Amino acid sequence: MKLIIAIVHDEDVHHLIDDLTKDKFMVTKLATTGGFLKAGNTTLLIGVEDDKVDRVIEIIKNNCETRNQMVTSPTPISGAAGVFIPYPIEVKVGGATIFVVDIEKHLKL
Amino acid sequence: MKLIIAIVHDEDVHHLIDDLTKDKFMVTKLATTGGFLKAGNTTLLIGVEDDKVDRVIEIIKNNCETRNQMVTSPTPISGAAGVFIPYPIEVKVGGATIFVVDIEKHLKL
Amino acid sequence: MKLIIAIVHDEDVHHLIDDLTKDKFMVTKLATTGGFLKAGNTTLLIGVEDDKVDRVIEIIKNNCETRNQMVTSPTPISGAAGVFIPYPIEVKVGGATIFVVDIEKHLKL
Ligand code: NI
Ligand code: NI
Ligand code: NI
Repeated sequence: MKLIIAIVHDEDVHHLIDDLTKDKFMVTKLATTGGFLKAGNTTLLIGVEDDKVDRVIEIIKNNCETRNQMVTSPTPISGAAGVFIPYPIEVKVGGATIFVVDIEKHLKL
Repeated sequence: MKLIIAIVHDEDVHHLIDDLTKDKFMVTKLATTGGFLKAGNTTLLIGVEDDKVDRVIEIIKNNCETRNQMVTSPTPISGAAGVFIPYPIEVKVGGATIFVVDIEKHLKL
Repeated sequence: MKLIIAIVHDEDVHHLIDDLTKDKFMVTKLATTGGFLKAGNTTLLIGVEDDKVDRVIEIIKNNCETRNQMVTSPTPISGAAGVFIPYPIEVKVGGATIFVVDIEKHLKL
């Protein structure tokens, strides 16, 4: 058996857990903070049979891969004197760090 | 040496740590959130010699096994018009997820 | 590859991450609570090549080793009636718990 430790962005957690449980994978969610980013990360522990590791990594990729997103700048830049114009900027969202570790036992009490 | 990763319910943590430290096991407590349940989970990291793994699992079982508990419904159901009757319901509490991983080094600075 | 799980004191995290990233190590920070101490602990996950494990442990030692620190007692003891005298006491700060685990895969999406 393998333990997959996946650190993913908060915004991707909901759909990732949806997809993992749809495929009957057991997921345990830990609290995580994201370091320097305001938006936090979440750590998931997933215990799987050896031959399911690639399937889990595929599901994580589908939900968490880094992509660009247009957001409206939260701090509008001043144009002419006294005029604030909100404008769209492109930011990277998503991303994941994955560790695969061999486990000797996996118990559910 | 082995690393035992145990995710247990918040309500069981206090007595579990009491029992583990009574037997001289070193426990490190991480913060955890419980996913969909309001009440949280806690993750414990326990580094032990190979021949102590079963003893630690036994202690976790003694403190954390799933059991039924009667609680008074927090949202009383309306009986006759305008009458709210609190009633007892049975819920599952406790439970634990355990991973046992081989470790190469365990240092305490 | 190895996964180094390091549980360190909050006050040491900033400089430890500074030093690890200066040496190009990839660090993931998890949230941790410190058990009985008010000041919390933080858990770091560091994925490294086998021949870098000793270097990472050295960097953790440099930043986190237990040391004595003089602090002014936050609850001054009463001397003569009605007189509160703050006084310095020596406390242990820092310290770290480290687990080194073998990993089969380390992905960054
Ligand atoms: Ni959804
Ligand atoms: Ni007690
Ligand atoms: Ni600094």
